[in-house]
Amino acid sequence: MSFVVKMNGSQNNDIHGNFISGNGVHHVSRWSVKPSEMSKKTLNPIRAIVDGMKLTPNPEKPMIALSIGDPTVFGNLPTDDTVLQAMKEAIDSHKYNGYAPSVGYQKSREVVADFYSCPEAPLDGKDVILTSGCSQAIELAISVLCNPGDNILVPRPGFSLYKTLAVSMGIQVKHYNLLPEKSWEIDLQHLESLIDDKTACLIVNNPSNPCGSVFSREHLHKILSVASRNCIPILADEIYGDMVFPGCDFQPLAPLSSDVPILSCGGLAKRWLVPGWRMGWILIHDRNDIFGTAIREGLVKLSQRILGPCTVVQGALESILNDTPPEFYQGTISFLKSNSEICYSELSTVPGLNPVMPSGAMYIMVGIEMEHFPDFQNDVEFTERLVTEQSVFCLPATAFEYPNFFRIVVTVPEEMMIEACIRIREFCARHYRPRSQDSHELDQ
Amino acid sequence: MSFVVKMNGSQNNDIHGNFISGNGVHHVSRWSVKPSEMSKKTLNPIRAIVDGMKLTPNPEKPMIALSIGDPTVFGNLPTDDTVLQAMKEAIDSHKYNGYAPSVGYQKSREVVADFYSCPEAPLDGKDVILTSGCSQAIELAISVLCNPGDNILVPRPGFSLYKTLAVSMGIQVKHYNLLPEKSWEIDLQHLESLIDDKTACLIVNNPSNPCGSVFSREHLHKILSVASRNCIPILADEIYGDMVFPGCDFQPLAPLSSDVPILSCGGLAKRWLVPGWRMGWILIHDRNDIFGTAIREGLVKLSQRILGPCTVVQGALESILNDTPPEFYQGTISFLKSNSEICYSELSTVPGLNPVMPSGAMYIMVGIEMEHFPDFQNDVEFTERLVTEQSVFCLPATAFEYPNFFRIVVTVPEEMMIEACIRIREFCARHYRPRSQDSHELDQ
Repeated sequence: MSFVVKMNGSQNNDIHGNFISGNGVHHVSRWSVKPSEMSKKTLNPIRAIVDGMKLTPNPEKPMIALSIGDPTVFGNLPTDDTVLQAMKEAIDSHKYNGYAPSVGYQKSREVVADFYSCPEAPLDGKDVILTSGCSQAIELAISVLCNPGDNILVPRPGFSLYKTLAVSMGIQVKHYNLLPEKSWEIDLQHLESLIDDKTACLIVNNPSNPCGSVFSREHLHKILSVASRNCIPILADEIYGDMVFPGCDFQPLAPLSSDVPILSCGGLAKRWLVPGWRMGWILIHDRNDIFGTAIREGLVKLSQRILGPCTVVQGALESILNDTPPEFYQGTISFLKSNSEICYSELSTVPGLNPVMPSGAMYIMVGIEMEHFPDFQNDVEFTERLVTEQSVFCLPATAFEYPNFFRIVVTVPEEMMIEACIRIREFCARHYRPRSQDSHELDQ
Repeated sequence: MSFVVKMNGSQNNDIHGNFISGNGVHHVSRWSVKPSEMSKKTLNPIRAIVDGMKLTPNPEKPMIALSIGDPTVFGNLPTDDTVLQAMKEAIDSHKYNGYAPSVGYQKSREVVADFYSCPEAPLDGKDVILTSGCSQAIELAISVLCNPGDNILVPRPGFSLYKTLAVSMGIQVKHYNLLPEKSWEIDLQHLESLIDDKTACLIVNNPSNPCGSVFSREHLHKILSVASRNCIPILADEIYGDMVFPGCDFQPLAPLSSDVPILSCGGLAKRWLVPGWRMGWILIHDRNDIFGTAIREGLVKLSQRILGPCTVVQGALESILNDTPPEFYQGTISFLKSNSEICYSELSTVPGLNPVMPSGAMYIMVGIEMEHFPDFQNDVEFTERLVTEQSVFCLPATAFEYPNFFRIVVTVPEEMMIEACIRIREFCARHYRPRSQDSHELDQ
């Protein structure tokens, strides 16, 4: 901030008229306020990529944004009235205006515990930390498990926040591959090859953003085996838990674990369609007492930095979790499945595109056969021009460390989904170049 | 987490049957999950002290807690109906369920800017960052200004969160003295003597927790002079802004500054009596462009870690700030003043106690002449025994780095305030020992 010129006790006045402090040291000060290293290291790749794109829609076509992972933007997926009513009752009760404990009201923690408890992975109130959204849940989980210099294992393609948080804390990120040809299962050999003595945590995101994939019980068992034999705790990002299509089954990770300690992160954002309310939680699963009290105390300490989520939402949690009718959840899911099917079936017949059918969440990943689109260098240029020509915006999967794909959000109204697919088809038809026989043969 | 024994390619199986990874390195793994250094360094001195106290109330007297800085706990200070109505309208509008920008809705930022803008320190929406409570405002402000190894200047006595946050980030805390005999003004010479080339930020808390003091305009000018000639930016914690007694005037710091850049932290918690709602803000005052865009961008980046405060409260902000009737604020203040006067006049006639009359906020600090209370080593023992004997709990000011004082919260109902003072008087009468003439003369 200021710099000091040691004058060995000499008392000359300097020309800037600077103050001579009591200890005889001259502070020759100039203003120089720089942002901290941590703030400079807090990088959001989605913003970095999107801000660098020229996103000028075609003025003749209304914009269709398939880019934002927020199910509320089009108004076609409102939350349930029960949820809103619960909030109003919490307000009218006058009971939820004061400070809650920094980890949340005991009653609210118990409500979450009861909602997620099962015989194989019982939970009670002390196993729940309420947080300001699932983002803070993930932040606290990484913060308590990792020191600077450690590394964490995160999926590729994967949600960018893991990297944003880790890098800002001086934690190295190692990406393990997901395999599109195996419905985005983890490449377990690759995963295990990344583990070293500085690996502090494995992040498993299921159902997946951006893939919309849902792991089978068998695959989850294999993931647990890797964690178990290497003694790596797991951060399970299960914010899309239970948002899976009929015929598919969401299996939370913890009930399958016999030893691996798990911090499962979730919240109201997606399933209850209120991401702005910032109500998240960590479920501490530690049946073999590997975390012990130390990790629990660490989480409590870290929670005291900002004192937890909004108390009104905490007060509404009991009714939100227990009274929301099953039809609400089913309605959301069947809508997401229907839109996913529309999108998948439309795009799977577009030459040059390879959509991967999702099983849950609210995304679909689409592979681009870049060799057939010589007009574009990469997925960023591809999606940029899709805006310019067709006013359709999809996130280039470079934002998820996965070039040559793009992500479509399937929460938009059906007619918008259909129109978007038509425009994507038109766009691809215009830019698609079949490989010439010559170059094709030369390749072989 | 796991440790690696390099075996130089040898392939023996170890007795634990550990996995041999692809690169020929044996991971001889045992579970050993330790909390991070940062979580261990996140220390809350209030918790540390209170948890170490034997707080067993006298079963014959109902407990009176004068320890909790939460005005809502006794139900005698409800928020205004306007505030609750604003929340319900925000819910019914269905407009505030989705994600807001991580720094808050533009409209909500503008509402806060308009509320605090004045000709000498104009603000608009871009100068406001909405945060999850004033705690997160302070966290972001420290995070953006300071690097590990830097130091910050914080008041003694002072709110413990500054130290909690700074130490967890590897930032050194230097305490500057407040002077009880000068209504807790800053010892400016002491303050300035602490500044060195690693000083990244000066925290000024006005009105003060725990002192209840309010700085005069003249004193604020002097503080700004110190910051200006040493080129130190200021974090102004003004969460108790405008909570000052009639006849006294709260002067925000920023309008007095001609050059010093200021991050003013505030929120709904205290003045609107809803601390649990976690709605805070940073007002960026930088008329000389010393922060420039870099600090603003740093704050935006840091805000993306957890994505801001609850959107429902953001949606309600316009009505909360603009429609709450002046009578509500006045009612709170006259109650706090009345209770402060009761407490001050009662305790100022108790031999051995020296209360300092506050001018605002919701606290009163009381000095203990420890030499007259030989039964107790310090303020912690004093307040501990006050619970045991009289069922009155006040926070020992050791929690604010200021031994031999205790802090009383004056938000309790009047009859409770009176009863507490009676019990404190009784307690002091029982333990007070006049200094003997002998030892007194020896002292001279």
